[in-house]
Amino acid sequence: MNYFEQHQQEYLEGLKTFLRIPSISTLSEHKPDIRRAAEFVRGELERAGLQNSELIEGDGNPLVYAEWLGAPGKPTLLLYGHYDVQPPDPLDEWVSPPFEPEVRNNNIYARGSADDKGQTYILVKAVEGLLKQHGKLPINVKFLVEGEEEVGGEHIEAYVASKPERIKADAAVICDTEMFGPELPTICVGLRGMVYGELHVQGANHDLHSGVYGGAAPNPLMAMAEILCALKGPDGRIRIPGFYDRVQPPSEKERQAWARLPFDEQEYKEKEVGASDLVGEPDVPLFERLWARPTLEVHGIRGGFIGEGAKTVIPARAVAKISTRLVADQNPAEATEQIRAAVKAACPKGVTAEFKPIHSAPPSLVNPNNRYIEAAAEAMKQVFGKETVYIRSGGSIPIVGLFDAHLGIPSVMMGFGLPDDNLHAPNEKLHLPNFYRGIEAVAKYLEILGEPV
Amino acid sequence: MNYFEQHQQEYLEGLKTFLRIPSISTLSEHKPDIRRAAEFVRGELERAGLQNSELIEGDGNPLVYAEWLGAPGKPTLLLYGHYDVQPPDPLDEWVSPPFEPEVRNNNIYARGSADDKGQTYILVKAVEGLLKQHGKLPINVKFLVEGEEEVGGEHIEAYVASKPERIKADAAVICDTEMFGPELPTICVGLRGMVYGELHVQGANHDLHSGVYGGAAPNPLMAMAEILCALKGPDGRIRIPGFYDRVQPPSEKERQAWARLPFDEQEYKEKEVGASDLVGEPDVPLFERLWARPTLEVHGIRGGFIGEGAKTVIPARAVAKISTRLVADQNPAEATEQIRAAVKAACPKGVTAEFKPIHSAPPSLVNPNNRYIEAAAEAMKQVFGKETVYIRSGGSIPIVGLFDAHLGIPSVMMGFGLPDDNLHAPNEKLHLPNFYRGIEAVAKYLEILGEPV
Repeated sequence: MNYFEQHQQEYLEGLKTFLRIPSISTLSEHKPDIRRAAEFVRGELERAGLQNSELIEGDGNPLVYAEWLGAPGKPTLLLYGHYDVQPPDPLDEWVSPPFEPEVRNNNIYARGSADDKGQTYILVKAVEGLLKQHGKLPINVKFLVEGEEEVGGEHIEAYVASKPERIKADAAVICDTEMFGPELPTICVGLRGMVYGELHVQGANHDLHSGVYGGAAPNPLMAMAEILCALKGPDGRIRIPGFYDRVQPPSEKERQAWARLPFDEQEYKEKEVGASDLVGEPDVPLFERLWARPTLEVHGIRGGFIGEGAKTVIPARAVAKISTRLVADQNPAEATEQIRAAVKAACPKGVTAEFKPIHSAPPSLVNPNNRYIEAAAEAMKQVFGKETVYIRSGGSIPIVGLFDAHLGIPSVMMGFGLPDDNLHAPNEKLHLPNFYRGIEAVAKYLEILGEPV
Repeated sequence: MNYFEQHQQEYLEGLKTFLRIPSISTLSEHKPDIRRAAEFVRGELERAGLQNSELIEGDGNPLVYAEWLGAPGKPTLLLYGHYDVQPPDPLDEWVSPPFEPEVRNNNIYARGSADDKGQTYILVKAVEGLLKQHGKLPINVKFLVEGEEEVGGEHIEAYVASKPERIKADAAVICDTEMFGPELPTICVGLRGMVYGELHVQGANHDLHSGVYGGAAPNPLMAMAEILCALKGPDGRIRIPGFYDRVQPPSEKERQAWARLPFDEQEYKEKEVGASDLVGEPDVPLFERLWARPTLEVHGIRGGFIGEGAKTVIPARAVAKISTRLVADQNPAEATEQIRAAVKAACPKGVTAEFKPIHSAPPSLVNPNNRYIEAAAEAMKQVFGKETVYIRSGGSIPIVGLFDAHLGIPSVMMGFGLPDDNLHAPNEKLHLPNFYRGIEAVAKYLEILGEPV
């Protein structure tokens, strides 16, 4: 039994303590819990043997920083995680209370177990284990743990953009993604970016009666439908001029690797998505549609009457929440302008239409042929006993783009969640074997990086 | 000064008493006021000299009935109005409180002044005036005043459908419409019908994250946009197969009469509608679009996220409130089936779509070349001193279809409201000269109908 195996019970108890803090960043009444969680992380880092720990205050929730820089000449890794969590509602669907962690069937159930307290704790315990065993680390590390990931808070963005010497590193490790399947070591090398915004359509200057005015008055909801259909075709293809111009297709090698992933599309359709059919661009394979093609989605449409019964109103205005996911080499600013122009061009007679962006994130794509990713793949392979697979994710992790843009460093997305971990949903869980082996894999990773090149 | 002119002050005071009763049928806490209003109408009818007055109880608010049948061999008119009113919100936009009637600038301001207490009172006072002056009426009359017009209540429908001997008549008079312009005597000879319902679109069996699933999962909101665009084209033309098959174009004579109506389309567009452009089928004149062509409108779309900020959800389902207005000779049952079939046919891959009707009303179109309408036009011409114009209305008054279907009698829509009376809105008003002359016009109408043919 190695050192890490001997300490599993202690890791589990420590994680439970972390998970009991309801550090929900979207709810302001949890501000004290946010601070408690930040203090907890700082305390853990100090006890692990890291130095210069600090809560970095700023406009938003504190960042937790700590470092160990005792390996001159060796690489420096920036280790990223977040201590804030999503709200737990709907509460009545939880089998055990969200902030009273419970182990069932080799999983630990609690809000934040996978996203991202459990994974943040993996980083802490890996470093701690090496320091406790050897009194030193094979490389240099800097921890940066934030508390606003779930609210898209801008404290970390402002901090990273200010390019402090303190967080200079050779690569970042993001421990906030998933394995492709149980026991299958996985590295995520690409993320989609996004442009999220509102589409505002204004018709008459007041609500009108559909009997009296129907046939003459513009209807912003109908105009919205027309604009949306102009932006995206029934074949799933985006019709915004120029939108695909910068899209880089995956390499043949990547396509072949995706085709080899253990995957049952029928089961995915029926069980994971739960729909009668999958949709999207014809002749584009599923993983390419999800990971390497931009999308456009409508999230909600406001305006008019949606209560019980009938109201014969032609509303004066309608607002749709829409977003596009971007892939390399699209960029959010250009995509925003393309959407804006397409909306203007598609605007029907009698109404005005405008796209108002809310936030955006660049796509990111890392070349897996670099030392930091290759070492991570090797470490995971050694610990999990299987060849590491490379995937991308359809979602967006803005911090990856920030590290790239401001620090010029690649991010290694080494994740230990599972696709059925119920992130953002009731009964979030973390598979305990992944938790324990994740700690070993990160420790192994640091050891490999510390070897002479 | 004639009898009616002598009693104007008394009519005004009586109307004020009626208007002070907040008989809001959509709000259950006003049930006692509904009954007070019904009793008030019955009391007025009794004092006017009508006989066999009664509150007809049933499933809903009471109907008020009274009759005078002392002119054997003469025609019998069924006089219709309603004593219930719309809610007054938003309250803070009223200049004087909605249930404290106030006269300003020759208008009486109060909820229900035009729709429909003032107009119902016109019918009562016309009959009262004739009875008080002559001790008898020139024809027979039956009053039927309901208390659920504003909620689409079914009490009157059930009662009329039961075809009671008691309400047999030669024609009905509906005093619940408008004059085309100030001082311009107007008879409405056509109404659009409607089919109102919900369009349900179901995608996956649970909400999904647009990053993780965008590109593969069906989006019911986008599917809704596609279905709506399949139902109605950007040119305002309905694309539902067969929808126009039964549509009867207006006669050349009617078209010419509409073209002669005093009307400024520019002013209508800018002031009444308040839009940059009017829309609808190209090459179809405005009044024909509003009165003689079917329409399809979206009233609201439910589903997904419409709060502040951003949520990247692909909702599992979406529901749109939609309605079509129907014109002669369309019928609601057939139109409903046509919509249902068109929705099914337009349903994109990955979702299911279903149209669920909520309620409907048949269109109605009266041939103006009948004795009852000609007499009404003549009476209004004599009292207002101008030729009566014939218009239609784009709205729906279900009772007209009911009288036609169940009693086989034409409805004479003789209205004294004005287009700017703010029906269903703050500061509802009735133009007092219309009120006083309306009473005289209805009395004159009864006299003309009483003349030997």
